[in-house]
Amino acid sequence: MAPKYKLSYFDMRARGEPTRMLFAAAGIEFEDDRIPFDKWPSLKGTTPMGQLPVLEVDGVKLCQSMPIARFVARETGMAGKTNLEQAQADAFVDELIEMLPKLYGVAFATDEAKKAEMAAEFDKTMSSKLERCEKLSGSNGFLVGNSLLCCDLVLHTVAFNIENYKPGTLKGYPKLAKVMASVNANPKIAAWIAKRPDTKF
Amino acid sequence: MAPKYKLSYFDMRARGEPTRMLFAAAGIEFEDDRIPFDKWPSLKGTTPMGQLPVLEVDGVKLCQSMPIARFVARETGMAGKTNLEQAQADAFVDELIEMLPKLYGVAFATDEAKKAEMAAEFDKTMSSKLERCEKLSGSNGFLVGNSLLCCDLVLHTVAFNIENYKPGTLKGYPKLAKVMASVNANPKIAAWIAKRPDTKF
Repeated sequence: MAPKYKLSYFDMRARGEPTRMLFAAAGIEFEDDRIPFDKWPSLKGTTPMGQLPVLEVDGVKLCQSMPIARFVARETGMAGKTNLEQAQADAFVDELIEMLPKLYGVAFATDEAKKAEMAAEFDKTMSSKLERCEKLSGSNGFLVGNSLLCCDLVLHTVAFNIENYKPGTLKGYPKLAKVMASVNANPKIAAWIAKRPDTKF
Repeated sequence: MAPKYKLSYFDMRARGEPTRMLFAAAGIEFEDDRIPFDKWPSLKGTTPMGQLPVLEVDGVKLCQSMPIARFVARETGMAGKTNLEQAQADAFVDELIEMLPKLYGVAFATDEAKKAEMAAEFDKTMSSKLERCEKLSGSNGFLVGNSLLCCDLVLHTVAFNIENYKPGTLKGYPKLAKVMASVNANPKIAAWIAKRPDTKF
């Protein structure tokens, strides 16, 4: 029997979305358990590492967002075709995902001077990361190899936020823009994006 | 023919050591290329992501420290026996490795007041992370399952620094101390520790 999956995360894309997109791309049913922020303090102690996301697989609780995404990528054949391809995909994930907390830092800063300073620093980080990923990306619509992998969905998640933050940024990175386009063109992903809750992050 | 491995990293343990220990534990030859800090600025541009470590596998350059460690763990059968075990091991790695930059932040702080503040914050983070890992660890000398995995070597690397920073800390976490002891008792690891360069971090 196919395992039963329950992904618990906040009602946002962020660090939970690559896993949701993996399930969607593979056509695998999962319970999309979205924890309201006001319920979190009372639930925190019940999670293995005091953090979300948590993925329950037939009752076993897995934690840490990218280990969860990598697990689901392996389960669904989207980790990479060879060990080497898997390592290359994995390096993109680590490089890209680091942008999220920095971007949220800017978004949630309340002091205007501090916010401007953080934004300038983030813009610099973002450019150098996107440049590196553009240089290393394949040119046929996938970061690595010739099929949709977890890293493409991490790029999509991060770039979705970047495009909200500075519309048009991806145009400067044609290979990455092509990856975004090929993710969006995947019918199962497109159906997921159309039905997923519309959240700010 | 067995692949040829060259690991380029600074002359420190830090984010390169789990990979070196994986090679040592598996009895696999690798070139331990240690880049002097003064040579780094001229080499930075030649690395795929402008960072070290880089692992060359038969000429292919892999980057990002934990993706490299996970790759070598898969090559050497130390990633986890099942996909689920691999995810559990992986979560320990992510939880533990985050301590290193924070610990180095304290070590390299020059302003005394700032250093004390950072140390207090680090101590809190360290306790909560070690508590969580202690709770989730297996009790037979391995974090997960019943054999040496990549996560045990990451714990060893992190705990080695912690013991230098606050000797005796691990005594408060008996299951983690037992993992340290079983890593140290591995003859191939012991031989590696005896011969590796003695660096501060």
